[in-house]
Amino acid sequence: MSTETTSSFDLVVIGAGTGGYAAAFRAAQLGMSVALVDRARIGGTCLHWGCIPTKAMLESADLLDRIRHAKDFGIGVGEPTPDLPAIAARRDQIVERMTKGLLSLVRKHKVELIRGEATLRGATTIHVALLDDDGKPAGERVLTSRDTILATGSRTKSLPGLTPDGTRIVTSDHILRSDRAPASLVVVGAGAVGMEFASFYADMGTKVTVLEYAPAVTPLEDAEVAKEMERAFTKRGIAIVTNARFDPAAVTADDDGVRLMVGREGEAPAELRAEQLLVATGRAANTDGVGLETTKAVVERTLVKVDQATMATAEPHLYAIGDIIGGLWLAHVAAHEGINAVSAIAGEEVHTLDYTKMPRATYTRPQIASIGRTQAECERDGIPVKAGKVPFQAIGKAVIHGETGGFAKVLAHAETDEILGIHLIGAHVTELIAEASAAMLFEATAWEVGSAVHPHPTLSEVIGEATLAVAGRSINF
Amino acid sequence: MSTETTSSFDLVVIGAGTGGYAAAFRAAQLGMSVALVDRARIGGTCLHWGCIPTKAMLESADLLDRIRHAKDFGIGVGEPTPDLPAIAARRDQIVERMTKGLLSLVRKHKVELIRGEATLRGATTIHVALLDDDGKPAGERVLTSRDTILATGSRTKSLPGLTPDGTRIVTSDHILRSDRAPASLVVVGAGAVGMEFASFYADMGTKVTVLEYAPAVTPLEDAEVAKEMERAFTKRGIAIVTNARFDPAAVTADDDGVRLMVGREGEAPAELRAEQLLVATGRAANTDGVGLETTKAVVERTLVKVDQATMATAEPHLYAIGDIIGGLWLAHVAAHEGINAVSAIAGEEVHTLDYTKMPRATYTRPQIASIGRTQAECERDGIPVKAGKVPFQAIGKAVIHGETGGFAKVLAHAETDEILGIHLIGAHVTELIAEASAAMLFEATAWEVGSAVHPHPTLSEVIGEATLAVAGRSINF
Repeated sequence: MSTETTSSFDLVVIGAGTGGYAAAFRAAQLGMSVALVDRARIGGTCLHWGCIPTKAMLESADLLDRIRHAKDFGIGVGEPTPDLPAIAARRDQIVERMTKGLLSLVRKHKVELIRGEATLRGATTIHVALLDDDGKPAGERVLTSRDTILATGSRTKSLPGLTPDGTRIVTSDHILRSDRAPASLVVVGAGAVGMEFASFYADMGTKVTVLEYAPAVTPLEDAEVAKEMERAFTKRGIAIVTNARFDPAAVTADDDGVRLMVGREGEAPAELRAEQLLVATGRAANTDGVGLETTKAVVERTLVKVDQATMATAEPHLYAIGDIIGGLWLAHVAAHEGINAVSAIAGEEVHTLDYTKMPRATYTRPQIASIGRTQAECERDGIPVKAGKVPFQAIGKAVIHGETGGFAKVLAHAETDEILGIHLIGAHVTELIAEASAAMLFEATAWEVGSAVHPHPTLSEVIGEATLAVAGRSINF
Repeated sequence: MSTETTSSFDLVVIGAGTGGYAAAFRAAQLGMSVALVDRARIGGTCLHWGCIPTKAMLESADLLDRIRHAKDFGIGVGEPTPDLPAIAARRDQIVERMTKGLLSLVRKHKVELIRGEATLRGATTIHVALLDDDGKPAGERVLTSRDTILATGSRTKSLPGLTPDGTRIVTSDHILRSDRAPASLVVVGAGAVGMEFASFYADMGTKVTVLEYAPAVTPLEDAEVAKEMERAFTKRGIAIVTNARFDPAAVTADDDGVRLMVGREGEAPAELRAEQLLVATGRAANTDGVGLETTKAVVERTLVKVDQATMATAEPHLYAIGDIIGGLWLAHVAAHEGINAVSAIAGEEVHTLDYTKMPRATYTRPQIASIGRTQAECERDGIPVKAGKVPFQAIGKAVIHGETGGFAKVLAHAETDEILGIHLIGAHVTELIAEASAAMLFEATAWEVGSAVHPHPTLSEVIGEATLAVAGRSINF
């Protein structure tokens, strides 16, 4: 297709991350002509700087740990050694393979993929400063659209006064281009990103210290999960400092490493030294420099305001999805938002997205997977709640798998029995939460899920048992 | 409790397998006084001769295979060697640990566990020839009950004329007491049991040949799954002979091993030799010698006829569950039947059990998990069907996990979109089928399941994508 015939599209999607390409592919399936614009290669943060490369690294770490326990399984084998450059190379090969997979889907769906920096001039005129494959300027192009979806994602951010130098003080972006492990690492922030890297480097033999401002690690998770997580990490030799206080501007970095004075709230600080410090304190939405000021779209605290069903901004024909609208900052959430936006554009029925029915997954060891409200959130919201909790120790497949730590906790409405939240910690729980997601979509009661047949012996039985435990009727615990 | 005070029970459950103990524990939760009688230790076939010990062995085999690919994951390690006695010892330790777990649940629920051979004298009088811990005669006891549940399970069986000797010609019972691997093995029967042992021994270095009378392996599974399975096993070096014909009575076994003449239907037979032959051609229900002839319960072709909701036999106050009523011969199915029987006895509402909503799991490599009708069954029943099929190659987590073989296939009603069957083959799929089970319980449409949020990156996304593919709307394939 030549430039002339493709300058006008039914839909232009700005940002080719998970949300952006999901929207583009669905729009193409519905017969729209679609342009998908990104300054980087297709795949966005998730594929290039987030989910995929981190999980590739963690997969190697998990296998390393399994091999360290091989003797328990009746397997004779020498001491395994991680080969960091090989782990990094595998990580990069996986990203490359999946990027190529997306490019073939772009062709299959006849989406026009344009590399360049896009700027809105109103909702339906998009100026693109084109870039070649190496990211060098390659001219300009103006696209017009009937509708536009903005999906420009987010970037790493640091704390005020703490500037990543890429060597001593790093963000996840730096780690995901690294092929070595520091001897010691301070991780600032015990959210999913910080905890996953802490888990990975601990397996690689790095001495890891995690600093968290909040009173608990994984502070968005249910308190019992967070407690179990802290216990498991501590047992693995990872130092955890919750209620941590330090002055980001006073962190020093030189050839000897990183130094900071840190202590628990109300306690005297002590010096902490490490080879490297990872800042994992959240991300910033990419809403600056994209031309939103040329539209009526409302931006509050860097986030674009949208309708929770259609993803429409205040500017007609302009939609926004993914990290730039805030919420959960998760790839699968962005994909659903993108699909909702396209459905709305196509005139299909759309439902308000219920963010309490979006699963969350953390690939530490043990893993965490959760959906819905925590117990504290139920109590805060005045919802009468009853809980069922069953440990993996009671589940035969966990014994067989040799990893019996963790549990399932099911929260149900005390009167209606409707499931309010499911909180899992343990081996492979990220694969178990899909059932909970389906159950919550169907507004199932705990008793109903307990009545579903879970095959034996599987880890998934823990959800069956915990839902039955809500009524005091678990069989194996 | 003394003999006198406990000779009369609200409920006597005969058979302490998964179905029996599930029924006993639930009855105790509902306030009934319960006796649970078995001639062997609590746990039945599943715990002592089936699911648990086989999965323990297969877990070791799976880890062995992962270690053989460790270099691909950036891990340096020597060649692993399976230690069969250690694998067998771990298997036996797991069985022991879980047996003790059940014994503690017996105490928790105040169920009286009685070791002995039970015989019905009518529905509510049970004669027990007591056995001591070593299985030696230890006197007699008569129990009376208000209601009785018969759950005596099943035993291995062979083909006519082919008598297992425990050395050359063996059943799963013999293998589960063995701590060595033969150099070569012929497996007769390519159902779940035969295929699991074939998978295990192939990993141990045994030369394995599988003989199946039907035109496909795993003949109860969807034809596309069976085809993929045969392909995967063949690639692993396992010889598969479908449409296999041989005379069981002409199999010879001596110090040199086993010999038989076998060929595909219509082809000339050739001699097949192996160190050992495993008969895995099904099981026989334990309905003989339990006193059913003293009741009005109807027994047809060795199976007890029951109401499909209450599990009631034709004899008042006598219920039957598990393998002795036929059906799927699965532990988790027996448990649900047991719970249904107890609910009926307690006067709670019970629903007719729908065996098309019971998941099935096979722990070969690749694994198989399925629920509902196959495509051939839909066509046989004249149900208009549409299919969505997505390979694991399209799923990021499968690429990360390093196991991209297999697929998800979703069958939905062509008009109503209701899910009729979900068929999975690939790594860890036994953990993914619980979502399908919940979805079918809720009579979900394929589109609805596709609308549920599957966390990224997980293997569970394959179900999301395959349900969307039913409508031609998958995103990542």
